[in-house]
Amino acid sequence: MAVGEANLGELLPVAGLRLATVSAGIKKPGRRDVVLMGLTPGSHVAGVFTRNAFCAAPVVVARAYLAASQQQPAYLLVNTGNANAGTGEPGLADARRCAAAVAELSGVPSEAVLPFSTGVIGEPLPVQKIVDVLPQALAELREDGWLDAAHGIMTTDTRPKACSVRFSCNGRSHVLTGIAKGAGMLRPNMATMLAYLATDAAVSPALLQTLLAEAVDMSFNRITVDGDTSTNDACMLVATGAAGNTLLESTDEPLYAALRDALQEACVTLAQGLVRDGEGASKFVTVQVNSGGDEQECLDVAFTIAHSPLVKTALFASDPNWGRLLAAIGRAGLEDLDVTRVAVYLNDVLIAEQGCRAASYTEQQGAAAMAAEDITIRVELQRGPAAATVWTSDFSYDYVRINAEYRT
Amino acid sequence: MAVGEANLGELLPVAGLRLATVSAGIKKPGRRDVVLMGLTPGSHVAGVFTRNAFCAAPVVVARAYLAASQQQPAYLLVNTGNANAGTGEPGLADARRCAAAVAELSGVPSEAVLPFSTGVIGEPLPVQKIVDVLPQALAELREDGWLDAAHGIMTTDTRPKACSVRFSCNGRSHVLTGIAKGAGMLRPNMATMLAYLATDAAVSPALLQTLLAEAVDMSFNRITVDGDTSTNDACMLVATGAAGNTLLESTDEPLYAALRDALQEACVTLAQGLVRDGEGASKFVTVQVNSGGDEQECLDVAFTIAHSPLVKTALFASDPNWGRLLAAIGRAGLEDLDVTRVAVYLNDVLIAEQGCRAASYTEQQGAAAMAAEDITIRVELQRGPAAATVWTSDFSYDYVRINAEYRT
Repeated sequence: MAVGEANLGELLPVAGLRLATVSAGIKKPGRRDVVLMGLTPGSHVAGVFTRNAFCAAPVVVARAYLAASQQQPAYLLVNTGNANAGTGEPGLADARRCAAAVAELSGVPSEAVLPFSTGVIGEPLPVQKIVDVLPQALAELREDGWLDAAHGIMTTDTRPKACSVRFSCNGRSHVLTGIAKGAGMLRPNMATMLAYLATDAAVSPALLQTLLAEAVDMSFNRITVDGDTSTNDACMLVATGAAGNTLLESTDEPLYAALRDALQEACVTLAQGLVRDGEGASKFVTVQVNSGGDEQECLDVAFTIAHSPLVKTALFASDPNWGRLLAAIGRAGLEDLDVTRVAVYLNDVLIAEQGCRAASYTEQQGAAAMAAEDITIRVELQRGPAAATVWTSDFSYDYVRINAEYRT
Repeated sequence: MAVGEANLGELLPVAGLRLATVSAGIKKPGRRDVVLMGLTPGSHVAGVFTRNAFCAAPVVVARAYLAASQQQPAYLLVNTGNANAGTGEPGLADARRCAAAVAELSGVPSEAVLPFSTGVIGEPLPVQKIVDVLPQALAELREDGWLDAAHGIMTTDTRPKACSVRFSCNGRSHVLTGIAKGAGMLRPNMATMLAYLATDAAVSPALLQTLLAEAVDMSFNRITVDGDTSTNDACMLVATGAAGNTLLESTDEPLYAALRDALQEACVTLAQGLVRDGEGASKFVTVQVNSGGDEQECLDVAFTIAHSPLVKTALFASDPNWGRLLAAIGRAGLEDLDVTRVAVYLNDVLIAEQGCRAASYTEQQGAAAMAAEDITIRVELQRGPAAATVWTSDFSYDYVRINAEYRT
């Protein structure tokens, strides 16, 4: 069950990056559960990782290797079915062994291979199974492997998330393609998610990191399914430079704005795709908070609404329960909130103002708005110029079923 | 469905306080939905109210009248079936009209009557129905009316919460009796709850407020069902003075410690009773965080665990999912947390240490611990002398059903 159509569109190859998706039988026999990405020499890579103190072994290793390789790794290796998290020192050794195996077969240093894992927590990583399929993966690397890779990184996802954006600058055409996985444990900083994006532009490592951090903040850090964060999150951005442009090093160059916009578009598309496929989701909800004093208080209100189990169960029931929305706004911790100025809309229907139900509002209007799969909750705080938007899903029987049955 | 036995024990009358529970047919015909409490002259009252910015009309009025009467109200009036919340200016007028009606019938000022409401948000309060039953309520006031009142204030509660504690000082015997309601929207500052406690001791208004605030902080502010707070919460403490002791005005007097302990015992009992009757609850979970740097970080870890939908669905499934516990601890925001020092126990079973599953742990041990209705999750941070405990319930299909079907 997911909300709305997938609409992946055409996935464009990114010159200088090749992918292979193979089956190591980590959790299920036959499942294609290992993805290898090979980067052309000279590629730069930026990364944003989970802030969870209990971060998984591959996160520790990937972060260290990314720095050690001066943001110029040669391979990214991803497995699903096992998160290699909560595995202590042996887990770190396992992550390093996987990287070393790729390095040995391909003649690069270990630090040039970044490992990533997602799946069950607390089980030893079956390293040998992964190592055994690496020759096949290396042999099968190809530039049009994005869709297979999008499938390969899935866990409880019901469908792949991927998108491509074209952009151009100085008469040169560029592409940016990305894939992501994640369906629960989604919230800021960050979701249980892995995302890999790549462009053929040449970009300096420092600027690439800035671009990625900004884009993540506007996209993956503004979605939530259940308020939980994971031990394994990572979002990686590759710039292969295969397009042959002069290295982008400054925010003043025209290519910067073009790439930034393309990257943000791709990240928002992937982030919304994660929410639409949220565990048990039956609604896709945009929570838009306007006219706040600053962006942070808008985010505070938006996330308080988006995390409220009472709001989320009302959304599941298609119940335009404006009382629960007011209660959530009221506990978001805003200083001196004048509740008589707050107005709340469902899509374009004014449902509450002056601390109570709007005089013009009818239950029919509310029911009509709630009947759709895509709903926008808009809050006007009327106390300043700031705004913020987050995206979430509802709380259903299926959410409980999936998380009661699935051993993460 | 509620977890464990109710065990109300014997409810002791409190000299100087009389209660009546009558039926006004506010939401359901025949339901006893109005509770009136009459306080002997000279009684002092303390109150703690919701911090939600969208607080309900009766909260606004009760808080103002409590101050206006110099903490010496004569009556407390409670209705269920309608929260008189999200009702704007007309709601405030309705709350005042209810108070005025009691005042007129009994010859006290309006400010001596504190109104409380709980139930559906956003519907106009049926004032006339309440006013019509006030003569009957005044006629039926009696000191042994506590159990009926405990039933009368219920909403989605499946059973009443009430308890009595005896204490003595200076050769004089005292009682403290309390009732509470609330089953969802429970979390710090405060739950969707109403609580009324009374003692026959004579206590100064200032000290009574201090005693109540401290007891609430150790009890009702340490429980959570779903992280939501309500617009209507109130916890009131009455000291009738009917026992005839010298007015307690100082924390140095022996009666202070005796009353404090009795009050905290009663508040913890009632608070735990609310969690045991949490919406859809099938487990009663004590989350105990020890050896932290300070109490606040212990509370941060405890509430992050207690609010995690992934932990709560695992509890529902009786799944000893220590990976989700580590992930919750890891995102609680503690500075410089050394995850290799953290140890996690289910009851007395060590399940995780050094960032991974404990070597001594077996799935059988975990399954045995999770099979019980009452479970203690204990976290040892091993970085200081502080500790904190909170209580919560699990997240079940019934939680979703109750909140998807019930229009609050």
